[in-house]
Amino acid sequence: MNGASTNAEHPEHTQGGTYTVKGKEFVRDQNYITTRIVRGGGSPDGGHDPETDTYPVEPGRYRLVAARACPWANRSIIVRRLLGLEDAISLGLPGPTHDARSWTFDLDPGGKDPVLGIERLQDAYFARHPDYPRGITVPAIVDTRDGAVVTNDFAQITLDLSTEWAEHHRPGAPRLLPTDPDERAEMESVMRKVFTEVNNGVYRAGFAGSQEAYAKAYHRLFDALDWLEERLATRRFLMGEHITEADVRLFTTLVRFDAVYHGHFKCNRNKLSEMPHLWAYARDLFQTPGFGDTVDFEQIKQHYYVVHKDINPTQIVPAGPALDGWLEPHGREALGEDPWGGGTAPGPVRDGEQVTPGHNPLYPA
Amino acid sequence: MNGASTNAEHPEHTQGGTYTVKGKEFVRDQNYITTRIVRGGGSPDGGHDPETDTYPVEPGRYRLVAARACPWANRSIIVRRLLGLEDAISLGLPGPTHDARSWTFDLDPGGKDPVLGIERLQDAYFARHPDYPRGITVPAIVDTRDGAVVTNDFAQITLDLSTEWAEHHRPGAPRLLPTDPDERAEMESVMRKVFTEVNNGVYRAGFAGSQEAYAKAYHRLFDALDWLEERLATRRFLMGEHITEADVRLFTTLVRFDAVYHGHFKCNRNKLSEMPHLWAYARDLFQTPGFGDTVDFEQIKQHYYVVHKDINPTQIVPAGPALDGWLEPHGREALGEDPWGGGTAPGPVRDGEQVTPGHNPLYPA
Repeated sequence: MNGASTNAEHPEHTQGGTYTVKGKEFVRDQNYITTRIVRGGGSPDGGHDPETDTYPVEPGRYRLVAARACPWANRSIIVRRLLGLEDAISLGLPGPTHDARSWTFDLDPGGKDPVLGIERLQDAYFARHPDYPRGITVPAIVDTRDGAVVTNDFAQITLDLSTEWAEHHRPGAPRLLPTDPDERAEMESVMRKVFTEVNNGVYRAGFAGSQEAYAKAYHRLFDALDWLEERLATRRFLMGEHITEADVRLFTTLVRFDAVYHGHFKCNRNKLSEMPHLWAYARDLFQTPGFGDTVDFEQIKQHYYVVHKDINPTQIVPAGPALDGWLEPHGREALGEDPWGGGTAPGPVRDGEQVTPGHNPLYPA
Repeated sequence: MNGASTNAEHPEHTQGGTYTVKGKEFVRDQNYITTRIVRGGGSPDGGHDPETDTYPVEPGRYRLVAARACPWANRSIIVRRLLGLEDAISLGLPGPTHDARSWTFDLDPGGKDPVLGIERLQDAYFARHPDYPRGITVPAIVDTRDGAVVTNDFAQITLDLSTEWAEHHRPGAPRLLPTDPDERAEMESVMRKVFTEVNNGVYRAGFAGSQEAYAKAYHRLFDALDWLEERLATRRFLMGEHITEADVRLFTTLVRFDAVYHGHFKCNRNKLSEMPHLWAYARDLFQTPGFGDTVDFEQIKQHYYVVHKDINPTQIVPAGPALDGWLEPHGREALGEDPWGGGTAPGPVRDGEQVTPGHNPLYPA
């Protein structure tokens, strides 16, 4: 058994209802199945190649399993849509809450994923590793040949969608990873900070097991948000005039901030909507095809407030906040007029992948 | 035993750590010790008169026990100060949290109230009624002759401070109760609505035992806040140009709203600071002597987040929200220039009654 499998270290990906450990800081388990899907990868018969730990790129073969509730999964849903990979990689959508064992396909007819035919994502993990000891996390990419998880390494998944899957991108797909090495290096550094201080920073506050650990986490988080507020005062997007992977990664935390992290995780120095540049930036992205249209606020709230029973024992889900502000003009065009870097916006959301009306101000009930 | 003594019905006044009842709406126990202190009241020897259920007004004799954390107690602290009754009625200040039995004087040297000589407010209740079956609540007025509670009927206490204690008011004390009968009737109706929908409304949301009860409470509360927002668009204070008891009652909930009710009680459609008139009104009062100078944000947060263990089991107290906004100009003078109705503002806070520096933006650390 891997000691890293405790629930406290697998927040919101996993099971059991206990996310805080009294007296302890929150530490995220960062051990994932790091197998990759790469061009020319895999074994001669198209299966797993143990030497390179790869599978081959093959459109129509893999299924991305990504709960809308989860910010790490939301990343992959956004990138898949920005790049136009809907035909190449299908999408499975577990419900917002999960039972003690696994994320479940409770939103699908009969409670089963229509392609994989399973009720619990856990089954796909066990098909790969019968004794899989860690949390059953999303996003996960599953091979539809044998129903086994290929990878759940969320940070690598989106990078590979940009690079390894390039020949299957839609025409006009943006370049989410800069080609200039200096720019790429700067983006890596920005993304590292966004990950440690913001994406994971909110969890560090919310799952702190002591007042001290919480206070430290709170200040780290807001220091980073202040830094971003300043950075975004003069740049339309994190890396300048064009949308990049860094924006996707920041967006998924910002869009959950006022709905969940501010109250549930006590990240409450201020709401996102009280930081003018960050809030306008978040609205700008929200209103951009591929971002806001992937967001289900109801599922997000259900997930956090129901699953984290140790910090919300009543499991009552707040009715707020009001969401109309997300559609207000952002005025960020003055900072740059070409979000797509010469490319184009993605088209309409595919049938069967639309967010439920009423769960997002873009889609009134 | 009185069935109304369950903790769920005695939020934040009482003990035990359980405030929500699964599946139930929150219902406040409104049974209090309704004895009054009145001019010419009491028995011939100056004690309790059982026939009229009264004690006599007598300056220097009674002690108001009022925790700063508690909104119902905060009322009485404000009114005492606005009316200049500091010499007539002394003030005992229990700490923000209480143990399973009672509010305690843990902030006082040796953990004892310096006048009453007791560690637990409970002792004063038992001195009056040895089998007192209900919650040990603040505010309570205690007779220093025998150390027994006279009354804990918070709504009556402040009215009597205005009327029965009139001859002991400071020069320039405002008239908090209108003399015009129509105006008084209107104020009673406003105060009733403020009590049921706002003062108690936030508790109804926070202690809801089901999603349904919570949703109903949330909408009742924000409907009332919308009504107040509109009322205060054209009136500087609730009853017009002058401060009245109605303002005191609304203020104690508003000042706690963003710090506690928004997150802890899930009253999160928006922050107070997102309702322009209500927020300017609250700031106006906060900056008025007698209001903001009675508020201890740290004690308020400690109280709610530590005591209500069933809704905040980690007992971690949020570091936010930022409080500097309370000192921003409110611009409400245009709606009326005489808050005191011909009277004057109270003078400086008495020695020994000041809020701890750092616990309130008026008093930087």
